[in-house]
Amino acid sequence: MSAGMSASVGQLVAATGGRLVPAQGQSETDAVARVLTGVAGLGDARATDLSFLSNPKYLTMLPTTQAGCVLIGAAQPPLAQTVQVVVANPDHTLGQLVQAFGPKPTHPEPGIHPTAVIGARVVIGARCRIGAYAVVGDDCRLGDDTILHPHVVLAGQVILGNGCILFPQVSVRERCTLGNRVIVHNGTAIGTDGFGYASVDGIHHKIPQIGIVVIEDDVEIGGNTVIDRARFGTTRIGVGSKLDNLVQIAHNVEVGPHCIIVGQAGIAGSTRLGHHVIMAGQAGLAGHLTIGNQVTITAQSGVSKNLPDGLVVRGSPAQEFKAEMVQEVARRKMPEALDRLRRLEARLAELEKLSAGRGVSP
Amino acid sequence: MSAGMSASVGQLVAATGGRLVPAQGQSETDAVARVLTGVAGLGDARATDLSFLSNPKYLTMLPTTQAGCVLIGAAQPPLAQTVQVVVANPDHTLGQLVQAFGPKPTHPEPGIHPTAVIGARVVIGARCRIGAYAVVGDDCRLGDDTILHPHVVLAGQVILGNGCILFPQVSVRERCTLGNRVIVHNGTAIGTDGFGYASVDGIHHKIPQIGIVVIEDDVEIGGNTVIDRARFGTTRIGVGSKLDNLVQIAHNVEVGPHCIIVGQAGIAGSTRLGHHVIMAGQAGLAGHLTIGNQVTITAQSGVSKNLPDGLVVRGSPAQEFKAEMVQEVARRKMPEALDRLRRLEARLAELEKLSAGRGVSP
Amino acid sequence: MSAGMSASVGQLVAATGGRLVPAQGQSETDAVARVLTGVAGLGDARATDLSFLSNPKYLTMLPTTQAGCVLIGAAQPPLAQTVQVVVANPDHTLGQLVQAFGPKPTHPEPGIHPTAVIGARVVIGARCRIGAYAVVGDDCRLGDDTILHPHVVLAGQVILGNGCILFPQVSVRERCTLGNRVIVHNGTAIGTDGFGYASVDGIHHKIPQIGIVVIEDDVEIGGNTVIDRARFGTTRIGVGSKLDNLVQIAHNVEVGPHCIIVGQAGIAGSTRLGHHVIMAGQAGLAGHLTIGNQVTITAQSGVSKNLPDGLVVRGSPAQEFKAEMVQEVARRKMPEALDRLRRLEARLAELEKLSAGRGVSP
Repeated sequence: MSAGMSASVGQLVAATGGRLVPAQGQSETDAVARVLTGVAGLGDARATDLSFLSNPKYLTMLPTTQAGCVLIGAAQPPLAQTVQVVVANPDHTLGQLVQAFGPKPTHPEPGIHPTAVIGARVVIGARCRIGAYAVVGDDCRLGDDTILHPHVVLAGQVILGNGCILFPQVSVRERCTLGNRVIVHNGTAIGTDGFGYASVDGIHHKIPQIGIVVIEDDVEIGGNTVIDRARFGTTRIGVGSKLDNLVQIAHNVEVGPHCIIVGQAGIAGSTRLGHHVIMAGQAGLAGHLTIGNQVTITAQSGVSKNLPDGLVVRGSPAQEFKAEMVQEVARRKMPEALDRLRRLEARLAELEKLSAGRGVSP
Repeated sequence: MSAGMSASVGQLVAATGGRLVPAQGQSETDAVARVLTGVAGLGDARATDLSFLSNPKYLTMLPTTQAGCVLIGAAQPPLAQTVQVVVANPDHTLGQLVQAFGPKPTHPEPGIHPTAVIGARVVIGARCRIGAYAVVGDDCRLGDDTILHPHVVLAGQVILGNGCILFPQVSVRERCTLGNRVIVHNGTAIGTDGFGYASVDGIHHKIPQIGIVVIEDDVEIGGNTVIDRARFGTTRIGVGSKLDNLVQIAHNVEVGPHCIIVGQAGIAGSTRLGHHVIMAGQAGLAGHLTIGNQVTITAQSGVSKNLPDGLVVRGSPAQEFKAEMVQEVARRKMPEALDRLRRLEARLAELEKLSAGRGVSP
Repeated sequence: MSAGMSASVGQLVAATGGRLVPAQGQSETDAVARVLTGVAGLGDARATDLSFLSNPKYLTMLPTTQAGCVLIGAAQPPLAQTVQVVVANPDHTLGQLVQAFGPKPTHPEPGIHPTAVIGARVVIGARCRIGAYAVVGDDCRLGDDTILHPHVVLAGQVILGNGCILFPQVSVRERCTLGNRVIVHNGTAIGTDGFGYASVDGIHHKIPQIGIVVIEDDVEIGGNTVIDRARFGTTRIGVGSKLDNLVQIAHNVEVGPHCIIVGQAGIAGSTRLGHHVIMAGQAGLAGHLTIGNQVTITAQSGVSKNLPDGLVVRGSPAQEFKAEMVQEVARRKMPEALDRLRRLEARLAELEKLSAGRGVSP
């Protein structure tokens, strides 16, 4: 199934500045006149669909695709039925085209829904949309063009920048701040108490969590993720970072700029990440760590030590990628190695017996 | 503690077609007249409780159980105080009996609660129940007998089949569809944006996610799970599949029919599962994989390769179950093997010295 | 950034009974007169901030801290600018001081918000606060001083003790009970159906889940966690236990008193934990296990066997901590050990050849 849009190949070329490669035997005029009404993957696309080639894994699908047009990074010889539009970054260009010509997400109507509960001294910017049953606590401030979907709950003194989108059932606790163009998906909680207790004689006494969460500009956060407020001070998500669904961010964590934190990953308290860190799915970071810039942590890895800039790690406990890979390969040879060890022992014992029989006592 | 129900053993025998085995010295008439007012596990059950034996692990509890009646797969010699009712599948039969004679879940009153906000052109089937503060967007369609609990939020153009139950705070984004008899538990989000970015010069640009989610008939989904909409096309959960709590389903994933996805498992983008796949708790699948039919992925496993039909895997990275188990056993012998290796080296060096002392130069 | 409070050092000494150690060259009078307006970590603190030293890892920050006052477990020689207040447990004492002198969490106004929907026969204790759009089902009972934040949903017959705080979008299903002083953070679901199916001919039939959840006194539960109701009987969280965010508790689990379950950990069905069990982040327990008292399960561990009292385990599958650590160290030597094994084989073959050339047939 393809998702709807509407544009001619000519419009796409004009919008992208891409280079046109008509299909076999097709004139440029015919190529640019072709109208596309949908977007689909190479395998599903039909003659009226725009498709794209980004992951080289799918290159083999190109000869047989039925797509009307494909965005591609490197021109291929003319295809049987598919117009190529050659662009530097097909993924990014497709995103821009879909934004321009594709369907838009559904947002609440402009203005404030009559059922929304708005507290005292709330400042709401221009062109905001606030959906049904949203609750905005006292002293909140919303920038221009910010959208609260139905059932969003902001506690008191929450500050949101311009152009934010909070989807249904997002909640933000008191005094937390979100920058500009922050997107938060359904059910995510920001500013919950950090998990901190002082244990005395076996009883865990709650340590009050009086800090806040600061989400910087251009951050996007998936659904049902939780970001705890700091014990005191600030839990921070740096500019341009992207968090997926069901991610756990503990108190006083600092995620640097432009990081990618994939689904179900978790970061324990007070750990700091540099910029452009990538945490793959279900990976975990222990608390009180310093993770350098451009570090990559592969899926399900568990990190319990500081990591320098640029390192790629895997495993639990995590190690440098290649070292761990070599160990994993060696581990798979262990059953056979144990057999070889046993045979060596037997052969050596045999040889020792021979040698003793033959030898002179030293 | 036992959960309430009310039926005589005779009623249970009639309802199940099971074979009666009275307690020691008990007449059939006395056995069928016994009244049961609760359901409980073998260890907790009292004389007025129905219990069951399904997991053989609990067979040893049978001689001492106080249960009034036990559903059992294979008849045992008469028990001291407990009537046996022999049925093919005690688990399934117990479920049916509890459904018939036990307490029912609490649902909203029939009709539409006055506080529910219903959009334009919404079609609501017969006998639907819509709870307090539910929000139903424009152009949604609900089949007959479908129940929305309080605080459910449906965006525009969402389609629900007959007999669905959406528990509190479930949210479904625009254009997604659920089949018949779909059950979704508290806080689950369906149709959130997939996690897709095109990175240009270190900046992550959002790729619009314009596809949908299709949940087929008889699917059940646990609480606080997240299912992302497709980039374009469809994220699909196949007929009869069951997802547990806190599961992550990324964009364009296709879960086949009758799969079991246990709590905190996660599936990365574009991976396809066959039918009757079992993913145990906290397991993870990388993206763009093809997982065959009846594959079993054990708890905490991490799969990064395609898997053929019927395979059972474990470990991270996951391998065929027995091979991985043999490696794990070998791994546990490694500390001792290193000692043996050191001793071998010493003995061999000794022998080489002896041999050199004794030998003639070549 | 520091979080606000307001107290003099003298007030803190009076409140804690701590011993005063003035800064270098400072009189006691000057020390107690110092006014603190914030709380911050050692690295961020300024002259007007209270700080603390709890984790010895941060001892090196003491000589250079700018903090006005530090809570500390063992007195250090007088610091350049920082007053020391020596107390037995700086973590716990700081918590008490912040509770007394720091900012308070934002709660709904006293009373019942006019938009809250309260069912029939609901009993609400003294001084309760019920926020906007909360829904309280029929026959619920709330103790004194209990707070429901906006958008909390209680189904029918839910019982809450005194002094509970349920943050926004917490939902509790029918017949579940929470004790006194229970805190539940945003989006957590209590009492969802357990994940139980009887599979017949490849079709998974739902097993009704008619039990309940009991949360005992002084339990705190993080955000977006899910606790399933029992199949029948009770899923129980013991007195004083603390659960973090995104935790999965399956049906019929029994968590003992004073346990600590860290973020993204999961416990499968019917497993029982003793008292003071610690499960670190992303750890998992298989179903039907018995975990003893004071067991510690390290991060990402996967436990598939019963564990006796006091054991510390790590790894997946989990083993006793030191044994697993020794194996992990050995595993890292495996690539080199394989080389040594190959060299041994070559040397032994050489020696065997020599020996055969030299020897007499036996």
